[in-house]
Amino acid sequence: MKKNQKIIAPFFEIGPKNYIYGDRILDLALAADAASEKYDVHVIFTAPYADIRRVDEATRNIHVFAPHMDALPIGRGLADVLPESVKAAGAQGVMLNHAERPLSYSLLEKTVQRAKRIGLYTIICADSITEVKAGAHLKPDIIVAEPAELIGTGERANFDYVVDACKAVQSVNPDVMVLIGAGISSGRDVYDAITHGSDAAGTSSGVACADDPLAMIDEMVHAARKAWDDREEIKLGQ
Amino acid sequence: MKKNQKIIAPFFEIGPKNYIYGDRILDLALAADAASEKYDVHVIFTAPYADIRRVDEATRNIHVFAPHMDALPIGRGLADVLPESVKAAGAQGVMLNHAERPLSYSLLEKTVQRAKRIGLYTIICADSITEVKAGAHLKPDIIVAEPAELIGTGERANFDYVVDACKAVQSVNPDVMVLIGAGISSGRDVYDAITHGSDAAGTSSGVACADDPLAMIDEMVHAARKAWDDREEIKLGQ
Amino acid sequence: MKKNQKIIAPFFEIGPKNYIYGDRILDLALAADAASEKYDVHVIFTAPYADIRRVDEATRNIHVFAPHMDALPIGRGLADVLPESVKAAGAQGVMLNHAERPLSYSLLEKTVQRAKRIGLYTIICADSITEVKAGAHLKPDIIVAEPAELIGTGERANFDYVVDACKAVQSVNPDVMVLIGAGISSGRDVYDAITHGSDAAGTSSGVACADDPLAMIDEMVHAARKAWDDREEIKLGQ
Amino acid sequence: MKKNQKIIAPFFEIGPKNYIYGDRILDLALAADAASEKYDVHVIFTAPYADIRRVDEATRNIHVFAPHMDALPIGRGLADVLPESVKAAGAQGVMLNHAERPLSYSLLEKTVQRAKRIGLYTIICADSITEVKAGAHLKPDIIVAEPAELIGTGERANFDYVVDACKAVQSVNPDVMVLIGAGISSGRDVYDAITHGSDAAGTSSGVACADDPLAMIDEMVHAARKAWDDREEIKLGQ
Repeated sequence: MKKNQKIIAPFFEIGPKNYIYGDRILDLALAADAASEKYDVHVIFTAPYADIRRVDEATRNIHVFAPHMDALPIGRGLADVLPESVKAAGAQGVMLNHAERPLSYSLLEKTVQRAKRIGLYTIICADSITEVKAGAHLKPDIIVAEPAELIGTGERANFDYVVDACKAVQSVNPDVMVLIGAGISSGRDVYDAITHGSDAAGTSSGVACADDPLAMIDEMVHAARKAWDDREEIKLGQ
Repeated sequence: MKKNQKIIAPFFEIGPKNYIYGDRILDLALAADAASEKYDVHVIFTAPYADIRRVDEATRNIHVFAPHMDALPIGRGLADVLPESVKAAGAQGVMLNHAERPLSYSLLEKTVQRAKRIGLYTIICADSITEVKAGAHLKPDIIVAEPAELIGTGERANFDYVVDACKAVQSVNPDVMVLIGAGISSGRDVYDAITHGSDAAGTSSGVACADDPLAMIDEMVHAARKAWDDREEIKLGQ
Repeated sequence: MKKNQKIIAPFFEIGPKNYIYGDRILDLALAADAASEKYDVHVIFTAPYADIRRVDEATRNIHVFAPHMDALPIGRGLADVLPESVKAAGAQGVMLNHAERPLSYSLLEKTVQRAKRIGLYTIICADSITEVKAGAHLKPDIIVAEPAELIGTGERANFDYVVDACKAVQSVNPDVMVLIGAGISSGRDVYDAITHGSDAAGTSSGVACADDPLAMIDEMVHAARKAWDDREEIKLGQ
Repeated sequence: MKKNQKIIAPFFEIGPKNYIYGDRILDLALAADAASEKYDVHVIFTAPYADIRRVDEATRNIHVFAPHMDALPIGRGLADVLPESVKAAGAQGVMLNHAERPLSYSLLEKTVQRAKRIGLYTIICADSITEVKAGAHLKPDIIVAEPAELIGTGERANFDYVVDACKAVQSVNPDVMVLIGAGISSGRDVYDAITHGSDAAGTSSGVACADDPLAMIDEMVHAARKAWDDREEIKLGQ
């Protein structure tokens, strides 16, 4: 029952985006839920708005996140996503500023503050190392560092980028956790991201477009656990 | 069990926007569902994305609509609303081009076509009489005619606007049904809109901000039925 | 000195977009100015904002248009384009709703009205035949009919599209003139567009990316004159 | 002939936005030009796109800036503002991310880099102290620190904000100069901003809506000089 626990490293994020929908979202969520328990790894599942409640109700371990929300107050805004709405549906957090839904920095700041006021976790996505730093200044729970041009390509960022992103967050705000995204397409990619210093890795197409998405989830969550344990062992050995 | 029937006049639309969220959405939906059956009036319930499935599953009569959707294909678009996603959750239709989420005409045309291809009803919102005509050219199922400056004010459009909007749609495409919105705040407003020629009326704040929202739903749906029957009687008497 | 005369068919439009800048804009404008006089054809020259005044001051025949403007009132809006600002600089009209700067229909309507109030010509761009009709309802001076997917390709719309676009405008508002754009890349294309019923043709890349842009302007403006004269002759002969 | 010199403190920025247009822009620019020479203060004049060339050609001292530009490459983008276009017209720099034209951080980073590559000065506007820091990470020449809710109000930021903004920039990148904006409406406000640590102050409505705009420019530029000299004297006295 990890769902009720605070998210700590190592963790993993799956966001199927719009690659799949309906019942297949639920299948993925159930697989993620099982892997989370099996490997004792927190898993964030970023669900389409319409699936947040169903996914949350059907699972025990995963933390359901919204892919975006608007900072508007309760009231008008017909097609806007009210923070209280996704929270009431079961979302524990929200991803913001993804390359596919960028926000101005000023609006991002207001939206992070809005999320914090109602008790939602915040993830900020960033592209360059400079943007990673700028994001960390806003004190989110998590920074996603992912070179935008690699999203959806299956090609991951080089190790220097991973190391630099972790250092950049560390230099601004060591409390912020770092998740490496973009191009993560195997357990090996997850392992490498975490052993190079990140707290987590995440993927969309890496799972949604895999030959066997459910097996890939197991492989990746397993890799997150193994990477973390190996890192800890090395630390202890020193 | 009107939910499975084709939407025909008279009908009514309730879209709580972001005035309320969570369980209160469900309360409203249940009241709308009861009124739909009681008065034999089709009711469209435009639910926040996160509530579409829950509202649809808990009701027998109302037609659940999404407040917007994006025309993107299956795939990327993390925070975009995939048509297939809201349909899989139970949406029967989608509202497009609301004053609070305007689309370019070119994109609106593509989005209407996308909705039709997967079997969703389409509602296009329009402000001026000229925009009503332009909307009718796209052959949606329903045009919402509502002066944007009256939205949320409790002051309804004058009767000339209602008559002109109905004539405008008639002149372009008589198959398109007309719903009058903006400032509908009592059963009387609903009655007047329909007796002046529309097929329906709709409201957001008129219900969500009423002293007794559930009673207001009953009053308005009742008025839709009465207006329609009175119109028919007059026609028969002629 | 055609600049001071009302724009009538046949006419031609050149909008170099951002293919060129600075002094080369002026070179193009001077060539257009010479061709306008030589062939007695009105030429609209859609100049980048920063070149409107210079181009207008250096020419005697061409009508300088802004590529867009915002409907805002005098006041704030630091980076918005005030209608009065482009008019004071010499713009006689404005192009609106180009595929590269689409507007919601509601805003387009307001912007057309704003332009009319201060005495600017209005051109509305449209993609599909349905959008051509919707645009004509707004009573602009000119509709640009151009399939968006052909813009910049050098491949022009088929003749059915040209004929249908002209009929569509005719059916809604016969006072609106029709300009065919997208893929116009030779004098022949200009000739064909006008002999199939349009009042004008226009191009961006067709001139800006031609081997000899100045010669191409002469060729195209000449073709506009010839097409019109041939059309008139056929009418007289009937 | 300060126009050809590098911008150094103390300096002043005037951006008439859309409060005025046409010949009145030129009047303001000439007054700013005279004040720049009279008080030996660099003045940045942020002109509407359509006035950049005229203002630059008519002056000897002021640095003309564009109020925005787009990061697009040479080519399409009919209504976008090409960096090379405003530069060719005489702009020496560009203001970016103003509260009235916010950019995502990722796009802001790309736009700053684009400006640097073609030799334009860059000004980044920021609202909160956190945004000031984030902006400084991008290494612009100048950060405008201005609480967005005070823009156009005539009420200036409190001194703590000024001091904190200067410290924030200093902590991230001491080479970036700080300009205080929002609510600057008298020479006194300019004086206070600079004596509290900034390199400059700037205004739009403070000049454009003043009873005597030309006198106000003289007063404000004078105050910038006096504030700087008083600061230097205090330093020398220490």
